[in-house]
Amino acid sequence: MSKQMLRALLLVAAIGAASSWTTAPNAAATPAKKTESEIHQWLDTWTKAFTAHDTKTIMSMYAPDVFAYDVVPPLQYIGRDAYGKDYEEFLAQYDGPIDMEFSGVHIIPAGDYAIVACLEHVSGKLKNGQTSALWVRVTSVLKKTNGFWLDVHDHVSVPTDMATGKSMLDLKP
Amino acid sequence: MSKQMLRALLLVAAIGAASSWTTAPNAAATPAKKTESEIHQWLDTWTKAFTAHDTKTIMSMYAPDVFAYDVVPPLQYIGRDAYGKDYEEFLAQYDGPIDMEFSGVHIIPAGDYAIVACLEHVSGKLKNGQTSALWVRVTSVLKKTNGFWLDVHDHVSVPTDMATGKSMLDLKP
Repeated sequence: MSKQMLRALLLVAAIGAASSWTTAPNAAATPAKKTESEIHQWLDTWTKAFTAHDTKTIMSMYAPDVFAYDVVPPLQYIGRDAYGKDYEEFLAQYDGPIDMEFSGVHIIPAGDYAIVACLEHVSGKLKNGQTSALWVRVTSVLKKTNGFWLDVHDHVSVPTDMATGKSMLDLKP
Repeated sequence: MSKQMLRALLLVAAIGAASSWTTAPNAAATPAKKTESEIHQWLDTWTKAFTAHDTKTIMSMYAPDVFAYDVVPPLQYIGRDAYGKDYEEFLAQYDGPIDMEFSGVHIIPAGDYAIVACLEHVSGKLKNGQTSALWVRVTSVLKKTNGFWLDVHDHVSVPTDMATGKSMLDLKP
């Protein structure tokens, strides 16, 4: 092999190496990866606000026309005002901070939308002195609006024992 | 006004009328409208299969890696096989066809994905002779795969009375 050929081959190898080195940062910058990263941030902000009973911050993360199927009745909440009252009533049961743990988090980027589905362990001391701890299933649909992700739909629940009609509040993932 | 000017004005008016006449069919053909129409068809197919206890057709509408939070335990079903068994057990409780009614159907087109959220009234005669009728909340995420919409995530539930721990099976929208 001539020196010239060797030099050409090395150049090709170098370009190949350079392009694979640059693959990682480029992949991280794809729209889907960017959405994933932004949704993780959204979840972090939500978690901090929820833990701190900060309903003002929480409700700023929802669209005005959000509709939600919550763990508690009625069948559905329509609009941010109705859902905000539901949040306030839920948080008012707790005395002090609420602990949150996530399991099996799925984030599905879908253009201007993103879907988050996960199991959430909500635990804390209730105002009646008892400790409450339960796993709920959560599905949320978020829409990017003027550069911000706003939640347009929530579904939060626990399974039901159809034979007894009891809610299953002590299941673990 | 000359005849020529009048003719020109009439021509402009005619073009305007023609373009507004053609707006409706064009709007119906936007990707979002097309998705909405396809998701309605998907729901129709699913409903017919569910009513007829046709689990083979139902499960052909799900992705192999579907994950689901169902109205019954466990907290989650992972994969089409596990979720298919859950469907079979649910349908096996009923004697004959199951009636389905939908309320407040939301379809959110999101590129290759679509979200469907609605209230479903499921009613029918159980094998023990009793009649069962309840409203459930349903959120589904569908993904277009090789031209077909496949369900990648389901969330089905009823609300819980947290004070009594009972599932609320008799709520109405």
